[in-house]
Amino acid sequence: MYGTGTEFRLRRLFDAASETSIIIPMDQAIEGNFTELEDPRALVRDMCDAGANGFLMRRGLARFTAESFAGRAAWVERLTGRSALEHQDDDQLLLASPEQALYNGADAVVFTIFFGKNETANLPAYGRVSDECRRIGLPLIGEPFPIGGPDALPYDGPYEVDDIRVAVRTACEEGADLIKTYYPGSPADMARIVAYSTVPVLIAGGPKAKRPRDVLEMVKGAMDGGASGTVVGRKIWQSEDPGAMIHAVARIVREGLDVDQAMAALGKSAIVVA
Amino acid sequence: MYGTGTEFRLRRLFDAASETSIIIPMDQAIEGNFTELEDPRALVRDMCDAGANGFLMRRGLARFTAESFAGRAAWVERLTGRSALEHQDDDQLLLASPEQALYNGADAVVFTIFFGKNETANLPAYGRVSDECRRIGLPLIGEPFPIGGPDALPYDGPYEVDDIRVAVRTACEEGADLIKTYYPGSPADMARIVAYSTVPVLIAGGPKAKRPRDVLEMVKGAMDGGASGTVVGRKIWQSEDPGAMIHAVARIVREGLDVDQAMAALGKSAIVVA
Amino acid sequence: MYGTGTEFRLRRLFDAASETSIIIPMDQAIEGNFTELEDPRALVRDMCDAGANGFLMRRGLARFTAESFAGRAAWVERLTGRSALEHQDDDQLLLASPEQALYNGADAVVFTIFFGKNETANLPAYGRVSDECRRIGLPLIGEPFPIGGPDALPYDGPYEVDDIRVAVRTACEEGADLIKTYYPGSPADMARIVAYSTVPVLIAGGPKAKRPRDVLEMVKGAMDGGASGTVVGRKIWQSEDPGAMIHAVARIVREGLDVDQAMAALGKSAIVVA
Amino acid sequence: MYGTGTEFRLRRLFDAASETSIIIPMDQAIEGNFTELEDPRALVRDMCDAGANGFLMRRGLARFTAESFAGRAAWVERLTGRSALEHQDDDQLLLASPEQALYNGADAVVFTIFFGKNETANLPAYGRVSDECRRIGLPLIGEPFPIGGPDALPYDGPYEVDDIRVAVRTACEEGADLIKTYYPGSPADMARIVAYSTVPVLIAGGPKAKRPRDVLEMVKGAMDGGASGTVVGRKIWQSEDPGAMIHAVARIVREGLDVDQAMAALGKSAIVVA
Amino acid sequence: MYGTGTEFRLRRLFDAASETSIIIPMDQAIEGNFTELEDPRALVRDMCDAGANGFLMRRGLARFTAESFAGRAAWVERLTGRSALEHQDDDQLLLASPEQALYNGADAVVFTIFFGKNETANLPAYGRVSDECRRIGLPLIGEPFPIGGPDALPYDGPYEVDDIRVAVRTACEEGADLIKTYYPGSPADMARIVAYSTVPVLIAGGPKAKRPRDVLEMVKGAMDGGASGTVVGRKIWQSEDPGAMIHAVARIVREGLDVDQAMAALGKSAIVVA
Repeated sequence: MYGTGTEFRLRRLFDAASETSIIIPMDQAIEGNFTELEDPRALVRDMCDAGANGFLMRRGLARFTAESFAGRAAWVERLTGRSALEHQDDDQLLLASPEQALYNGADAVVFTIFFGKNETANLPAYGRVSDECRRIGLPLIGEPFPIGGPDALPYDGPYEVDDIRVAVRTACEEGADLIKTYYPGSPADMARIVAYSTVPVLIAGGPKAKRPRDVLEMVKGAMDGGASGTVVGRKIWQSEDPGAMIHAVARIVREGLDVDQAMAALGKSAIVVA
Repeated sequence: MYGTGTEFRLRRLFDAASETSIIIPMDQAIEGNFTELEDPRALVRDMCDAGANGFLMRRGLARFTAESFAGRAAWVERLTGRSALEHQDDDQLLLASPEQALYNGADAVVFTIFFGKNETANLPAYGRVSDECRRIGLPLIGEPFPIGGPDALPYDGPYEVDDIRVAVRTACEEGADLIKTYYPGSPADMARIVAYSTVPVLIAGGPKAKRPRDVLEMVKGAMDGGASGTVVGRKIWQSEDPGAMIHAVARIVREGLDVDQAMAALGKSAIVVA
Repeated sequence: MYGTGTEFRLRRLFDAASETSIIIPMDQAIEGNFTELEDPRALVRDMCDAGANGFLMRRGLARFTAESFAGRAAWVERLTGRSALEHQDDDQLLLASPEQALYNGADAVVFTIFFGKNETANLPAYGRVSDECRRIGLPLIGEPFPIGGPDALPYDGPYEVDDIRVAVRTACEEGADLIKTYYPGSPADMARIVAYSTVPVLIAGGPKAKRPRDVLEMVKGAMDGGASGTVVGRKIWQSEDPGAMIHAVARIVREGLDVDQAMAALGKSAIVVA
Repeated sequence: MYGTGTEFRLRRLFDAASETSIIIPMDQAIEGNFTELEDPRALVRDMCDAGANGFLMRRGLARFTAESFAGRAAWVERLTGRSALEHQDDDQLLLASPEQALYNGADAVVFTIFFGKNETANLPAYGRVSDECRRIGLPLIGEPFPIGGPDALPYDGPYEVDDIRVAVRTACEEGADLIKTYYPGSPADMARIVAYSTVPVLIAGGPKAKRPRDVLEMVKGAMDGGASGTVVGRKIWQSEDPGAMIHAVARIVREGLDVDQAMAALGKSAIVVA
Repeated sequence: MYGTGTEFRLRRLFDAASETSIIIPMDQAIEGNFTELEDPRALVRDMCDAGANGFLMRRGLARFTAESFAGRAAWVERLTGRSALEHQDDDQLLLASPEQALYNGADAVVFTIFFGKNETANLPAYGRVSDECRRIGLPLIGEPFPIGGPDALPYDGPYEVDDIRVAVRTACEEGADLIKTYYPGSPADMARIVAYSTVPVLIAGGPKAKRPRDVLEMVKGAMDGGASGTVVGRKIWQSEDPGAMIHAVARIVREGLDVDQAMAALGKSAIVVA
């Protein structure tokens, strides 16, 4: 894809030297009440200063915070969602179009798809978005969750690694340029997922880790398993010092250091993530 | 159709001298975990070197493996699918558009349609794809399964030959340029299916044969019944020596030899397909 | 409508001197197994030689048999259908578009609509097709069946004449240029239907008559009741001598002769239709 | 451009092993009377059998000769032209669209542009074609002639190498994927042109060489100067044995042999090109 | 325009801290023979490493050099041009569309317009491009030259400052987001131009300065007059050490240093620009 619009934009999401990516998701405000998201303009500026490669936001927040990061970090527009008010966590709706996302200034788009349930509605929508992204040179980040099967699983798993592999690969086969998925818990399982993906894989934050060291160990495990970076948000911007957390994550992601070395970037190792 | 885009592209799928086709499907990764599909670039190159006329792939894998076969073998883009995670085997979804498939570089497209169930959604979609394919000169390969009726049948049959005939013919009547269907078990039944088709018929691999000889006997029976070639994948790329298997299949398909003669191409006759 | 595309094409369906039409439907292959439809190229050529004004076919068979009749008889593309495999006879699906039908070379299109059931889906589709046909100058043949009401009727009736009148007139009101409907059994009832139609009416064959004389008596009754011709297929191409049957039908339709005179064209009067 | 439609199609124009191309132009019939172009179907088949990678034809001849090469060699559709009847050799008209060329089955398109005259009409047309080719994944072959300047030059030069460089580069800058241009007479000048091009360069035949040896020396000089192949037509299909000429050209282009070695492929070295 | 696509992209052209821009134009290859542009991939990488904010290139060179700067510096696609071969320097042609430029990955586009001649053709084209750029969120850089009037001026002036003001303002009034224009020779005249512009003004290199000090003095004068940066190319990439020249220019543009201080960045102050 050298020289295509897809390539020009994909490279904006990555650190050029290490070919890794640290993207900060801030698309959660429709899912609940987050004090940090009330007016995150200073927070976004701090994280941008600390070296985040991009921010994952819906179009409204991107517009609201544009001055804090435009031109310095990439913007990934989330296309899918569902409000917290319907309590229907097994489906995601297509809320925005790739073409307007490109007009809005987005460098890439994210599409969450829950495999195993509602595929009849969601998978064809993903396919149409994929075709349009290709036509207009806009990178597509697939975020697949294998929630289905006879016993539907909760949004946040845990999933079988074999199921994650099929979900990730389906997103690839139908046109993803990057994958965002959960860390499966060990470098070996991460490697199995990366092996079945045909594009680079970034890990999502997941909801459970509490201490910064846990976050960094997750990041280290993912990178050891072949991941290309992180799309970790709450664990960073809900921490005591988001900028320091980004520096610590970057030590591992970009420089390949170990967790102890990365902890040094935090100064205080006992910070607890809310 | 002499001189249309459909003809120009159809001929890329066929061996010119024998007017037969050996297409390798590699579109199964969304249906499960296949070690061979983790990074099939060398495998695709080998099968291309061995003389495969084309590869049936979804757009993601075609992009990933383009360097291994582009310009030497045709690419057939699969438009339909459903992940293995939903365990709903009686429906297929339209995931990609013919026009973007043409822009992507595809030489033809495959549309799987399950007759007898969900026709209200699927048959009109097939019809629209057919009309678009005709307008843009892109060959349409119909893959019909007569799964329906009062007692819905499993994905892989067995089906009544009369039902296969109606399913195949419906796909023809609504615009298929080629048919992909299962071998019905005997040359006589194959001939009945070919007789009711208005376009050439290629056989799919089917899930049951284990030994290379079984595969070759199936191919021989199909050719004796009037088939124009094969869309057999796993039986080839899961075998011990995929290139040799392609050579053996080609002996039957292109040269009309018998199974014993084709087995010679395999060297070791006792190879067991995984 | 003199001088419009609709008129130019409509006239291709009619015998110029008598202003009547004998169209042969061959669109049934998706509804079952018909030996005559396996390779009907010679059959089509014979019926074309015998003076058929046109053939009603789906796009696949028209393409397959084009050399047998193109330029000599009209092609009416059927837009609607459903395979025999779903056993759901009370609904018809829109499978093709008028615009592509025109591009394909069709002179007119047929749309079957079942009134009284599924109108919510089907009647607006008919309306859209009608608007498009008008815009592009393509004649629309409406084929209405009043199957509905509190007690849904079987596909092949019998229907109340008053219900047929409303169904026919609805198809006319929403844009049909010609009507295809069943012969109601008597010239008087036929006349009532013709009286309520605003466009010419052709009769369909219906499934029941066995002897050639029965077929010819039905045709004679329809013509006496004001019909403009026939869209009778199986009763002709499943007969012993399809060319002779067309000659016999033409005696009645074009020349206004009686049944005995028409029977003379058959040579052997005792032929039994399968 | 890995994995794009442009790449899939570009590779069809090239020999995979040597990454060189031998394309036969047969687009000259609108410029005069050529006996060989009266019915070139056997000629095209012979040249295809001899290993031509593709044929440069207008859409009409491609349709007429499709059976002779479709599926075995690429088709490059010429988009521009002007009949011999207007005697206005300094302008070229856009006669066909890239999108329909793709629908027609073309693998690439050629656009001839005369720089230095009529740029106001021609250069923006080239630019629009370039944008459309990019959007639909169809390779664009630019054929630039620096005919202009204060003293307009004849169609066939001779041109200053510096002017050819600017013309070639302008075609590249505005989107060509391949260049077709005249051989400038020496490997050193060829190298200067290739150096200023950002895409591979193929040489056109030019009108002056008479003996096969002259043709082969031109080809050898071009390849030594860094060209990637030939778009030589009349010197091949007007020769006594076109197939042998293609074999001889291939010795140089694909195998890198010298002229004496290539002459051996001709058998009779004294053949005079008409 | 906060939060629009135009803003997101505009900011990629600017240094965030100083809100200034150093863009390197490399769009001149169609205007003559430049050794540096034969294969500028290493040169582009060096200038990117040295801190250039963006590159002004036509689509062909951008594709060719993408790996050297994509993701690290912006790409401004030039939409207008005319080859050096027609010697008609008073007109510019629209060669590319904003929409495809956006799909190609461009962050902005440049449109050169010669006021006072050919406005009937060019000014409405500029207006249409402006409207389209606004709709799709793509910044438009206007490059106005007041060449016209009763006595047409040469391409490179000198122009009356009042004429430059009107030309610049016309480009602004019809939708420019940035202006590229020649330095008028003094900070005072620069200030008059900046005062009449409604958007930031960048200075073009102009053809006359020879010594690095002359270049830096021009840059210093422009910045003192209120310019927001430079679009100086040949004076940088034809210098002995392009990276050092960018560092020197950046001292003035971004840090506000004087010429002597900036010269220190060059090391050798006596370098002569070719």
